[in-house]
Amino acid sequence: MKLKQVCAGIDIGGTNCHIGICSIEGTVLASTVMPTAMFPDAKAFAKAASQWLKETAMRERLEIVTAGIGAPNGNYYTGNIEYAPNLEWKGIVPLAEEFKSASGIDEAVITNDANAAAIGEQYYGGAKGLDNFAVITLGTGVGGGFIVNGKMFYGADGMAGEFGHMTVVNEGRLCGCGRKGCVEAYASASGLIRTAQELLEKPEAENSALKKINPAQLTCPDIFEAARYGDDTACAAIDQTAIYLAEALVNMTALLSPSHIFLYGGLARAGDVLMVPLKYHFKQRMLKHHRGRIELGVSLLPENAAIIGAAALGWSEFGKHEFVED
Amino acid sequence: MKLKQVCAGIDIGGTNCHIGICSIEGTVLASTVMPTAMFPDAKAFAKAASQWLKETAMRERLEIVTAGIGAPNGNYYTGNIEYAPNLEWKGIVPLAEEFKSASGIDEAVITNDANAAAIGEQYYGGAKGLDNFAVITLGTGVGGGFIVNGKMFYGADGMAGEFGHMTVVNEGRLCGCGRKGCVEAYASASGLIRTAQELLEKPEAENSALKKINPAQLTCPDIFEAARYGDDTACAAIDQTAIYLAEALVNMTALLSPSHIFLYGGLARAGDVLMVPLKYHFKQRMLKHHRGRIELGVSLLPENAAIIGAAALGWSEFGKHEFVED
Repeated sequence: MKLKQVCAGIDIGGTNCHIGICSIEGTVLASTVMPTAMFPDAKAFAKAASQWLKETAMRERLEIVTAGIGAPNGNYYTGNIEYAPNLEWKGIVPLAEEFKSASGIDEAVITNDANAAAIGEQYYGGAKGLDNFAVITLGTGVGGGFIVNGKMFYGADGMAGEFGHMTVVNEGRLCGCGRKGCVEAYASASGLIRTAQELLEKPEAENSALKKINPAQLTCPDIFEAARYGDDTACAAIDQTAIYLAEALVNMTALLSPSHIFLYGGLARAGDVLMVPLKYHFKQRMLKHHRGRIELGVSLLPENAAIIGAAALGWSEFGKHEFVED
Repeated sequence: MKLKQVCAGIDIGGTNCHIGICSIEGTVLASTVMPTAMFPDAKAFAKAASQWLKETAMRERLEIVTAGIGAPNGNYYTGNIEYAPNLEWKGIVPLAEEFKSASGIDEAVITNDANAAAIGEQYYGGAKGLDNFAVITLGTGVGGGFIVNGKMFYGADGMAGEFGHMTVVNEGRLCGCGRKGCVEAYASASGLIRTAQELLEKPEAENSALKKINPAQLTCPDIFEAARYGDDTACAAIDQTAIYLAEALVNMTALLSPSHIFLYGGLARAGDVLMVPLKYHFKQRMLKHHRGRIELGVSLLPENAAIIGAAALGWSEFGKHEFVED
């Protein structure tokens, strides 16, 4: 019996690594999660991931023919993770090579998680048939993946799309990258929490429902929930986040003129409570010739999108992918 | 006798329109200048330009086979100038159509002046053989043209590359586009002059050589000249300009990861007096993984670069252009 050909999709995060096996139709056939901190280096991770993939493929009678890896600061050209501030694996980490040698899968490509999300959106999400669009990831960090003239855009060095490190505040908050005022320091989960914490220290926040929560334990869902009930401080924190994110989106659209922008990740799933103010500020600030031309919405990828995105990268490289319509 | 095939290159500026005839090798065979204010609308300009081109081509025994037009807010896809703040021709102006019908030249394409400069740089300047680079124009306005994966990047709507309208100062100077704090409001000729004027009003500028000039008549060459003699106020004005420009360049490189950035236009010709502080601030601010990877320098296009750039656009469209080596 001929084995079904599948793709390994791996998403490396600061907290967890998601590993999955994906069909060409974009279905995740099996998946697992491993805490990133379990692995002192990329070699140890590559070994464990390969082990799981081999065992699962054998059990499910699958043949893994290609692999895609999404990782912070993943460089498509070199196959390395390069100076990822949110990872314990420091400096230049040759992850694609480590994975190829541990797994025996010859086709293994890496890119950053936002690029993987963009390819996933193009293959399996809301961007089917679009040639110029952006995916912005809003999670622990903030990232960007850009499809330009129908293709993933890597730039001269494989590192294009660092949307999170566009400056939005002069001499603003210190960012993990070492610079100041990056949009990541405001529109990431921790950025929103910090904004709310700062506002909660002001006298006008006296009656905020968020006051009942230990500030050190405040979460984004707390803030979104309070805002849905009309809490002024929560709404103000979200509005300020929306302003900075809109500012960065406008700067990005000035340069790239995408037709669509898809927001992806934890904050994007908050729904109207973030999207309504964000769309307002984006429209207010955008260049005149962009008005009415750019659609801003939420990613249509399903829950396990990180694996699907990484797998789409693998399939795109495998060169066998035909455009999949629902 | 067979006529030599040539391209019309037209550059529309806020003050002057440059019209030329250019060989495929990038030599300007004839050129003229017409003040933009002479023409109440694009139709009148198209008629006058066509007239000059026809007479000149006939006299010089040339056949104009294609035409490229660089214009502020020129949209490659539509052939229109769209809401150009620095032009008297308001709203949406169908210049390519007007020009085709007045001149009888079937192949006439339009793009913004910075995109034309980028194509010129790729064909005839310092970017031969480069696949990912940026040209930033520093003149009356500030613009950007991006070659991505070897091709001019127009975005979804033909308007990509609006580098000048990236915000660099929160709630900063009002820009011609109606927004606040755009890099154009700081790193254009008038932006630099305004910065110097503001600094000259401070007590510490008391001994500045620039104090001898009527502030309303201050020019960029005055400021550069004073800085070359070590004038503190002039140096401070240039340094501040360099900081804002560097900030926008870093944001752009975060997104686009070009291998080279070429500066073009009046300010770029100032030389070391601007380039030394600019390179310093750019290096200080850039993302870690970009260090040592991005070359920042001045355009290698000659004097009449605007015509050459527009003509390169025409040739690129004509599809006959072979890569020209010196």
